Amino acid sequence: MILPTAEIVCLGNELLIGVTINTNGTFIGEKLTKLGYEVRRTTCIRDDLELASAFFKEVFSRKPDVIIVSGGLGPTYDDIQLEVLGKALEAPLIEDEQAVRQLEVYYGKRNFKLSKERRKMALFPKGATILNNRVGGAPGCHIQYAGMDIFSVPGVPTEMEDILLNHVIPILNKKVENSLFELKFQILNCSESEIAPCINDVKTHFPDLYIKSHPAYKGKIGIVIHISGYGKKTESSICEAKAEMIELFKIKVPSLIINNFKD
Amino acid sequence: MILPTAEIVCLGNELLIGVTINTNGTFIGEKLTKLGYEVRRTTCIRDDLELASAFFKEVFSRKPDVIIVSGGLGPTYDDIQLEVLGKALEAPLIEDEQAVRQLEVYYGKRNFKLSKERRKMALFPKGATILNNRVGGAPGCHIQYAGMDIFSVPGVPTEMEDILLNHVIPILNKKVENSLFELKFQILNCSESEIAPCINDVKTHFPDLYIKSHPAYKGKIGIVIHISGYGKKTESSICEAKAEMIELFKIKVPSLIINNFKD
Repeated sequence: MILPTAEIVCLGNELLIGVTINTNGTFIGEKLTKLGYEVRRTTCIRDDLELASAFFKEVFSRKPDVIIVSGGLGPTYDDIQLEVLGKALEAPLIEDEQAVRQLEVYYGKRNFKLSKERRKMALFPKGATILNNRVGGAPGCHIQYAGMDIFSVPGVPTEMEDILLNHVIPILNKKVENSLFELKFQILNCSESEIAPCINDVKTHFPDLYIKSHPAYKGKIGIVIHISGYGKKTESSICEAKAEMIELFKIKVPSLIINNFKD
Repeated sequence: MILPTAEIVCLGNELLIGVTINTNGTFIGEKLTKLGYEVRRTTCIRDDLELASAFFKEVFSRKPDVIIVSGGLGPTYDDIQLEVLGKALEAPLIEDEQAVRQLEVYYGKRNFKLSKERRKMALFPKGATILNNRVGGAPGCHIQYAGMDIFSVPGVPTEMEDILLNHVIPILNKKVENSLFELKFQILNCSESEIAPCINDVKTHFPDLYIKSHPAYKGKIGIVIHISGYGKKTESSICEAKAEMIELFKIKVPSLIINNFKD
């Protein structure tokens, strides 16, 4: 099955110098995967206008269906996402009235003036549709370009989540045909390399499923087996694959313990 | 100051579908930055031979001084890092005797045989130097190619850390000239957009320093200011920049509280 593709781009030196763990990439990756996208790459790049805009031209040339860009929408000098996107898209930045109003309301409630630095957050590439931020100051945006949907979201996780869940996902939900089915189970008393040949076997019978063993999954003991796929008959295939796998595992490791697993 | 450049590549679908948070990228990024490298990109890519090997050709064309590749060295069918590197480097995979011995010792202690799946972990691109793994089974490697140093490390964090700290960093330490100086301090009673113009001002006086405000840094209240740079006179410049910044901040926010900060 050919799935629509996505790339995630996280902008910010702090992600490259070891200051911030990129939890945004993980969050966005999970949501896009469940929605039915194949996330091809997640890239962290520096706050550098030349490097970053050249990078986006590369991304555009790969033509993913969706690009989500997180980080660099704030008021500081190195918050340059919109400038970067404008340069890569060769689109001028234009002050958006709706964004100015949103910023006026946000800072007004806090008794702050709309200074030059804050007003910068209302400068969007021409043609962008503003996505309201209900948690923080910086609005996001949606840009349609050469058949791609580009979504711009803040780097602050709570603000990113707000815009992603309330604006981005509902827009994408109307576009995708197949969502994800998945099942996880945990096995104890075996090593990953012992069961690797069994997984290889089962994999050949279910080429459309993604089957993966995770040792120490989220700090848990044992190995978690994750089976997933897209499309109509996937749910029953997953159950068949699980049954076949357990049969093979038990031949290798008679003492195997199997648990259901939900996370 | 022109720093040597680095790219970090993390291989594994689990990083793209939201199952695993990419803490390896953060750890490696911090170590390379402190050593004196400019980490240009951190990219998570899928376990797909064609996509991943094409991706590495792109990386090679950018000619970073160092490439660290994490993940995909294990015994399962989707552990394909060495195959991917071999394809991208156009180098055949050759069984390495030292790696076979290391795997024999590792599995021997656990009363496991060196099965075909486990033996796969000893197949390295021709010309690679093996890096011993003292924590897990899969050895890493060092490849020199077209002026670049490529290091291959496992995805399991404890194994990656072992090989990175005991092999990779000592090799790179001999190559770099400038290491990082940095200072962090915390300010309370102000917003990021209030102090943004002061940071812009100070930035123009210290163009060689990287100055960054982090709201909610590692979950802490207030804003953490991070100043860093490379080279001989950096330590004194950082102190001057801090003093100048605090003076400007206090004009804007007389009630400002300043704390030292270490993490």
